Amino acid sequence: MAVIDINADLGEGFGIWELGDDLALLDVITSANVACGFHAGDPLIMRRVCAAAAGRGVTIGAQVSYRDLVGFGRREMDVAPPELTAEILYQLAALDGIARAEGGRVAYVKPHGALYNRVARDPVQAMAVAEAVRAYDPSLPLLTLPGSAVYEIAGELTVIAECFADRAYTPSGALVSRREPGAVLHDPETVARRAVRMAVDGTVVAVDDTEVALRARSMCVHGDTPGAVALARSVRSALSDAGVALEPFA
Amino acid sequence: MAVIDINADLGEGFGIWELGDDLALLDVITSANVACGFHAGDPLIMRRVCAAAAGRGVTIGAQVSYRDLVGFGRREMDVAPPELTAEILYQLAALDGIARAEGGRVAYVKPHGALYNRVARDPVQAMAVAEAVRAYDPSLPLLTLPGSAVYEIAGELTVIAECFADRAYTPSGALVSRREPGAVLHDPETVARRAVRMAVDGTVVAVDDTEVALRARSMCVHGDTPGAVALARSVRSALSDAGVALEPFA
Amino acid sequence: MAVIDINADLGEGFGIWELGDDLALLDVITSANVACGFHAGDPLIMRRVCAAAAGRGVTIGAQVSYRDLVGFGRREMDVAPPELTAEILYQLAALDGIARAEGGRVAYVKPHGALYNRVARDPVQAMAVAEAVRAYDPSLPLLTLPGSAVYEIAGELTVIAECFADRAYTPSGALVSRREPGAVLHDPETVARRAVRMAVDGTVVAVDDTEVALRARSMCVHGDTPGAVALARSVRSALSDAGVALEPFA
Amino acid sequence: MAVIDINADLGEGFGIWELGDDLALLDVITSANVACGFHAGDPLIMRRVCAAAAGRGVTIGAQVSYRDLVGFGRREMDVAPPELTAEILYQLAALDGIARAEGGRVAYVKPHGALYNRVARDPVQAMAVAEAVRAYDPSLPLLTLPGSAVYEIAGELTVIAECFADRAYTPSGALVSRREPGAVLHDPETVARRAVRMAVDGTVVAVDDTEVALRARSMCVHGDTPGAVALARSVRSALSDAGVALEPFA
Repeated sequence: MAVIDINADLGEGFGIWELGDDLALLDVITSANVACGFHAGDPLIMRRVCAAAAGRGVTIGAQVSYRDLVGFGRREMDVAPPELTAEILYQLAALDGIARAEGGRVAYVKPHGALYNRVARDPVQAMAVAEAVRAYDPSLPLLTLPGSAVYEIAGELTVIAECFADRAYTPSGALVSRREPGAVLHDPETVARRAVRMAVDGTVVAVDDTEVALRARSMCVHGDTPGAVALARSVRSALSDAGVALEPFA
Repeated sequence: MAVIDINADLGEGFGIWELGDDLALLDVITSANVACGFHAGDPLIMRRVCAAAAGRGVTIGAQVSYRDLVGFGRREMDVAPPELTAEILYQLAALDGIARAEGGRVAYVKPHGALYNRVARDPVQAMAVAEAVRAYDPSLPLLTLPGSAVYEIAGELTVIAECFADRAYTPSGALVSRREPGAVLHDPETVARRAVRMAVDGTVVAVDDTEVALRARSMCVHGDTPGAVALARSVRSALSDAGVALEPFA
Repeated sequence: MAVIDINADLGEGFGIWELGDDLALLDVITSANVACGFHAGDPLIMRRVCAAAAGRGVTIGAQVSYRDLVGFGRREMDVAPPELTAEILYQLAALDGIARAEGGRVAYVKPHGALYNRVARDPVQAMAVAEAVRAYDPSLPLLTLPGSAVYEIAGELTVIAECFADRAYTPSGALVSRREPGAVLHDPETVARRAVRMAVDGTVVAVDDTEVALRARSMCVHGDTPGAVALARSVRSALSDAGVALEPFA
Repeated sequence: MAVIDINADLGEGFGIWELGDDLALLDVITSANVACGFHAGDPLIMRRVCAAAAGRGVTIGAQVSYRDLVGFGRREMDVAPPELTAEILYQLAALDGIARAEGGRVAYVKPHGALYNRVARDPVQAMAVAEAVRAYDPSLPLLTLPGSAVYEIAGELTVIAECFADRAYTPSGALVSRREPGAVLHDPETVARRAVRMAVDGTVVAVDDTEVALRARSMCVHGDTPGAVALARSVRSALSDAGVALEPFA
């Protein structure tokens, strides 16, 4: 039987500012990537999200980032490895402590935004992130892109690949850049069908209509745009209807 | 035999900026109040200080603060209790994770600056801080002023009183405000003599020359002013020479 | 003929986060209190709001605040006067430069949130704010509560009083605290009627049904809650229908 | 007669933290690159440095930076051009307002750290910085490296080249990277001799002993390392003794 995890970014408000509908998403997903205060998320938001996730049995992951509130962690930064390692360790430990105070714990790590893209291609920053996880708890898996540079440097760390039901893929299995037309799919039926195919067959139809193998243990959905939660719900329903077991990987 | 702990604030630089001589102080003190990033201290500095403290067997405490880098945590803030609790929990967890990665752990909590003074007189903020400690690890003691409002709300938490060898005391056992002349003593011999008397007899001579009882398990020294490290060293020598055992309380 | 200004807070997003509907409000108000980056507002948002305000002929004011993004400037802080003066001067100058680059200029200053309340009762912080305005441009008026401590220390500075059509008033002409029931009025018809009475007669009916004199040259409306923009529009329509001239004070 | 300006970075503390000896440097330099709060400098420090500079007749420049306190603006960031333009405009305007309150004004702009290096080779970020200067005051010159990409995009803006008496140069007139041995010269006599040669002859001896032409209207000295102020003083003395006129370029 096919098994997949559904993950989404949560706790991405800051102070008075809100982003996305955390509570709605918690009913859809099996793993919550909780922001740790560097690109979004303040301690009170982190605590509330952890309490809500723990209360629903949703697995908590640390969504670690560059220190960049105004840029929402979406701007690449040349952070020296020892600094980056320390910054990741700080975020990871802060969230884990908060999660534990709410009866949960951090069960995996997912880099956010520009750091996610950077560690997918830069072994130096990937290693800096991996060092932080190793120093904190080497049993924590890293959630990342298939083919990421993280795999090369992971050593004994577990790396989990994720897929995106609402994104177009190249024939080589990479994501089509958001700057290209058609990079993001919006039709709920199409997205749900692709989700099922990814989970059941482990394949996706690329932009050139070829079928590409895509082994992923987790599927990422979004919640911060209009219609996103509805799309996430339709993905979940389709997966359930197709007999796919929805289970966290961690 | 008299026993006392010597504590000092460490890791109070930020990025390129340095403050105090951490390594010199680590040879003087038995407990290091390590800044957690809200008033000072960045993740890399925290990591280095924890490594140095753990390597020397110095006990690590979380020096938690209001979120106020530019004011160095010295400006009182009306933070709502749930926010304050979450902010303390965040700092405590972040430092503990970093300390553990370096072979140590956070063994106590000391509020910093304006928060230190506020929780000494405001049971509401004191309770908010205590809630964070309780949520994280109720076995962690709080280091504070004798007579602090923290005692009233501590419940099952342990509260440890500290004294200051280089500060003038009122007849009621309170510190003379820094704004008053003579509030801070600079003569090494005088300070060392007072330190010994505090540790051995549990008394201090107040500004009106009366003797005041002062039971404290820890003595605070400073390292961020010229001559401070030398003063701290002379306090330590005098205590040792007087047969006082120097031992952390946690 | 009665004349009044309508002011509202604008540009209170930060980075990815949005708050309120700035463009909708710009069609309602005659004066925009633009956030300057300390409680909300980043340089790009400030620039866009100034461009939109200048393009519509809406007067720009500097909405200056304590440095407190996570608390949205709503937490009182004990900032020493020279620091506060410098912080206000910094914000004021930054916004004015941006406004001038967009063909406008800062024409007045309004303290935000906790600072607004603090300067209404604390002559020390009020003086610190006034010093900044004096140092930058003493012809800039300060927008504040009637009866504020700002009046006592204003010297040659102009102080403009504002009123709130959607807030309950005490018999002494003060605002009923938001913590009390009935402090905020939501019925558009009631609010519009009160707005007209404030502008035309200079009176308001207090919570004990007595009529209170209330001379204000500006009326504050809000835009950051559901229904707020509609309420602001109905205030504007009612004022226009009653023959009140809507004109900025600066 | 040869004419040169001596510039240095000032106001690079933050809150309690200090960096360099601003007052000592003000007696050596003719132009002060004042930090604007994004990599260093808070409003109070900015005000004090501007007062001291204006009081001594030292020209004030805006030392603008990426928003990166913990990294001291030394980490390259992929900031989108409209954001970067707005951030530079904000810093420039804030400092200018503060300088004017102290009887001075911002007379030029110098990018700091990673931004300085980036605009020297990246026309996109260089254009974003130039746009900010143009929008604020197109008569303000930009102080930068000879050969910088800034020249290509400057249009009607004035660009001023600077030289470094204490840095090794390649045969093509570029600076030897700080990562290479011998990149920074420390011997006061050597540095002073090179300074005179740069100012009088417009040449420098490169690392391969060839003579390289180096036309610069300003010479940068440093103040944040031990011995730096003494080195700066010896450069100034040597220039004066050689009959070089020390004059700001702006």
